[in-house]
Amino acid sequence: MKKILVVGLGSMGYGIAESLIRSGYTVYGQDKNLVQQKKLMEAGGAKENISFNDLDAVIIVVLNEKQTREIIFGKDGIANKLRGGTLIMVCTTVSPNFAKEMSLRSEDSGLLYLDAPISGGALKSSEGNLSYMISGSKKACEVAKPILDATAETVFEFGETPGSGSAMKAVNQMLAGVHIAAMAEALTFGISQGIEPKRFLEVISKCAGSSWMLENRAPHIIDDDYTPRSSINIWPKDLGIVLDIAKDANFSAPITAAALQQFVAASGSGLGQEDDAAVAKVYARNAGIKLPKK
Amino acid sequence: MKKILVVGLGSMGYGIAESLIRSGYTVYGQDKNLVQQKKLMEAGGAKENISFNDLDAVIIVVLNEKQTREIIFGKDGIANKLRGGTLIMVCTTVSPNFAKEMSLRSEDSGLLYLDAPISGGALKSSEGNLSYMISGSKKACEVAKPILDATAETVFEFGETPGSGSAMKAVNQMLAGVHIAAMAEALTFGISQGIEPKRFLEVISKCAGSSWMLENRAPHIIDDDYTPRSSINIWPKDLGIVLDIAKDANFSAPITAAALQQFVAASGSGLGQEDDAAVAKVYARNAGIKLPKK
Repeated sequence: MKKILVVGLGSMGYGIAESLIRSGYTVYGQDKNLVQQKKLMEAGGAKENISFNDLDAVIIVVLNEKQTREIIFGKDGIANKLRGGTLIMVCTTVSPNFAKEMSLRSEDSGLLYLDAPISGGALKSSEGNLSYMISGSKKACEVAKPILDATAETVFEFGETPGSGSAMKAVNQMLAGVHIAAMAEALTFGISQGIEPKRFLEVISKCAGSSWMLENRAPHIIDDDYTPRSSINIWPKDLGIVLDIAKDANFSAPITAAALQQFVAASGSGLGQEDDAAVAKVYARNAGIKLPKK
Repeated sequence: MKKILVVGLGSMGYGIAESLIRSGYTVYGQDKNLVQQKKLMEAGGAKENISFNDLDAVIIVVLNEKQTREIIFGKDGIANKLRGGTLIMVCTTVSPNFAKEMSLRSEDSGLLYLDAPISGGALKSSEGNLSYMISGSKKACEVAKPILDATAETVFEFGETPGSGSAMKAVNQMLAGVHIAAMAEALTFGISQGIEPKRFLEVISKCAGSSWMLENRAPHIIDDDYTPRSSINIWPKDLGIVLDIAKDANFSAPITAAALQQFVAASGSGLGQEDDAAVAKVYARNAGIKLPKK
């Protein structure tokens, strides 16, 4: 396998493309943002026009289900352009049902489909150290293996039914989103009680209240640095997917629902493009307290 | 310093008493549950009647503010029995304002007061490896030092104003309680999506969704073992304190409020004496799904 197209060159997709270039693949990049496409070409990406018929795999790492569907089955979609047996690997966060539908339709078009959501963030992506939660046919897994080897630190396999990987991703996103908002709630509550955020991080990271997200995101607030590593706008979307899936399963998730509302408030008050730690600004504003300044 | 009384011989207080015995102190124990008092005597605790006038310190590790107030200033309280300069060290989870009030009244009685909430659980307590979050006068901290040396792994100091230690404890409890309930929400949501709890723990503990509480409590659910290491009933109390303090500071804490309701539901449905991981039973019942069985 040699030629791969990566659709979506945001921080995660760009990192996957970089890792594949390092492993010797011919990597094409596609993004609405032409700056990212050009940046990838300068970093060793393929410069010629894409010949879809020659591709061995397409990796899709875009914002949501709508974009994913458009790319595969839209008017100008890839399903009609790829040769039979080509792998479509979808890393976008989607619902399990969406993954099932896309997989069935891809098989109808003679294509392989891998449900392959990712976790790990921009840095791990560019290092080739992502975590994948994959589900799909044995053949799809087999064809994807060298791609996973080039881009992953850990691959969790969830069997042959597409959608199981996305279910696990939804569970992880539920926790990740709740933990970011809970960190913001606790850090700002601490300020209201005279606990400096730096001290908060120092103490909590050694106590039972710690979480991976707390240790990762609290420093952004302490440093007054809201450069988006992962942006606020990810969360209304991802926790929305989680709650849609939950509702379909008659599953009541009140803590996730409360966390979602805080991200919606952050987005609604103009913080959507900031780092997701900026959800702390909603708490600070609501309580009339001040966050650290540079 | 030689003679110490520990009031409250639950898992945390008993562990503190054990650690002090190991360090050579004469340790008296007091608990409504006489079985615990007897157990401590058999483990090396003092057997004679307590002579309050000879005590050098009293450590209070009881359930709540009401019990703490009763022990110190109740009709038969210790404040009138101790000699001047004796240290009262309160490890109970209380509000910062309560700690301030108790401290002022203790000083009025010529006693030293240390606001000294703890974190770490029963095992760390019995090993002498607790975390303390202390605040109080220099003199109180100085007198407490050998006691802390004998029972603590880490001591976080929060200055001379009693109540600051309890504020930090409230922040930690907020996160700890939210993370336990969020773990239960995500683990049971996973079951609704076909993810086995064992697999859930294996994957999440390597992903961004992990927390200290998740890694500590999820195994209880997987093992169907709800022997109370820390019981459900702790949380309506502790998160109640957190939300009272928050309300006094005009601080809105919607995620903590949602978590509290799940613990209240657990307590209300008869699970109060079980391990706090049993909050998962509320989620399972509400969604008509089954938790692992032995």
